[in-house]
Amino acid sequence: MNISIIGLGLIGGSMALDLKMLGHRVVGVDNNPFHQREALDLGLVDQCLPLEQAVSASDIVVVAVPVGSMPAIIKEALKHLPQEGVIFDVGSTKQQICKELEGHPRRNRFVAAHPIAGTEYSGPSAAHSGLFFSKLGIICDVEQSAPDAVNKVEDLFVQIGMELKRIGSEEHDKHLAYVSHISHLSSFTLGLTVLDIEKDESSIFDMAGSGFASTVRLAKSSPEMWAPIMVENSKHLLEALDSYIEILNQFKKKILNNDEEGLKEMIKDANRIRTVLERKN
Amino acid sequence: MNISIIGLGLIGGSMALDLKMLGHRVVGVDNNPFHQREALDLGLVDQCLPLEQAVSASDIVVVAVPVGSMPAIIKEALKHLPQEGVIFDVGSTKQQICKELEGHPRRNRFVAAHPIAGTEYSGPSAAHSGLFFSKLGIICDVEQSAPDAVNKVEDLFVQIGMELKRIGSEEHDKHLAYVSHISHLSSFTLGLTVLDIEKDESSIFDMAGSGFASTVRLAKSSPEMWAPIMVENSKHLLEALDSYIEILNQFKKKILNNDEEGLKEMIKDANRIRTVLERKN
Repeated sequence: MNISIIGLGLIGGSMALDLKMLGHRVVGVDNNPFHQREALDLGLVDQCLPLEQAVSASDIVVVAVPVGSMPAIIKEALKHLPQEGVIFDVGSTKQQICKELEGHPRRNRFVAAHPIAGTEYSGPSAAHSGLFFSKLGIICDVEQSAPDAVNKVEDLFVQIGMELKRIGSEEHDKHLAYVSHISHLSSFTLGLTVLDIEKDESSIFDMAGSGFASTVRLAKSSPEMWAPIMVENSKHLLEALDSYIEILNQFKKKILNNDEEGLKEMIKDANRIRTVLERKN
Repeated sequence: MNISIIGLGLIGGSMALDLKMLGHRVVGVDNNPFHQREALDLGLVDQCLPLEQAVSASDIVVVAVPVGSMPAIIKEALKHLPQEGVIFDVGSTKQQICKELEGHPRRNRFVAAHPIAGTEYSGPSAAHSGLFFSKLGIICDVEQSAPDAVNKVEDLFVQIGMELKRIGSEEHDKHLAYVSHISHLSSFTLGLTVLDIEKDESSIFDMAGSGFASTVRLAKSSPEMWAPIMVENSKHLLEALDSYIEILNQFKKKILNNDEEGLKEMIKDANRIRTVLERKN
């Protein structure tokens, strides 16, 4: 198949690489000439072309740009897409994009997707094969897309080793606020808290262990990707954030009261996450 | 050398294993008979004995129990320690223990230590060799201990592959509040936030990716170990927590205002953590 990938960052680049290795012809589209060059040098894509030229010759178009830029690019791509072609996105928020595409004459050729995969790195150089293996490939609001379009995307996901899930876009965004977006927020905040105190305590990071590295890892994530996600998913993210702050305040109160037993209870309660994480592995 | 390890959990057990492999004779002390049995079965120690019997025949005594139980056990051990013997602890807070031992007639045979190593697991079965390799071994308030006692502990740390650092106990506790204790608090809170919403959203963890797993990992940590650390280091931990909550509120305000540029600035600022983490690796 002929596949175009618009946006050659971590996700777009990794998907390009996997698809190219599977024998598809992969054309890259990126408005950053350095990313084009890098993607070609790294062998992520067969060729780079302008959007119109790439899309008009594609069976499938993958849009892998920051979520705020998705609607305009998808609408532009739909103009040039062949009749039987399919466009899907890979963004971390799904409600806004489905809303923006509502009623579009070619809405049924678009599939709202989200492969749950990534790392804290970004750009073409962060791309690597196997990123999607045994990860979840989610399709949202499946009834808005033509059945053959959904099948083609799910087929592609299966080819790169993903498991499949279908879910409504609102439920998707709510769940992601809790299991992904608030994780990033907590990590950014941890990074800022420690960087802030470092001004007065210059050797503070000497004593950071592997626990700190693990908890702060996501603070390395891209501003261009994450700021739009926070804005697009603000409703659910603010709910999650309020609940998070509320629990921090419960901890604070118990620490202030030297309430060791109360703290033990809260930590024991948090330990239930073990079962969840083991179930997933 | 004859070495006693009081408390056969992750840290005590791992240290026992390394020291036994180096040819030292290691005697375990633990008031939990199941832990004694497990430590013997796993080959962590040569023998288990009651505290008095173990300590009175030891060159070095390691105390690896939750920080709240340290002072009483160290005082008891100092009663039975041979004249040239040395006791050190491995707790994550150092001010309180130094304060409690202040003016003790045998204070100079005690070394306040903290090997910065660990995982989110606990108990003898979590022990493994090499845990301390290339990690930092910290000695606090070194001037309170006899020089030969400090040398013996630092020697032992070097034998198990650690790098050395000396620091005051107050500075230690302040730094650890930021690079370790607040990390744990943020992770416990993340776990509780998501477990709480799970009551209404049963399949929420289906969509958790590797980012969530990394950020929530420390929420598996032991209540018996962490509640006393929070209480003992409450002064510095509350400072760190206030700063953490303040930054969360800045994020909240920017999300409420759809301030994408402001969010980008904050995330970009948090990204500086990359340099720190790379410097450490």
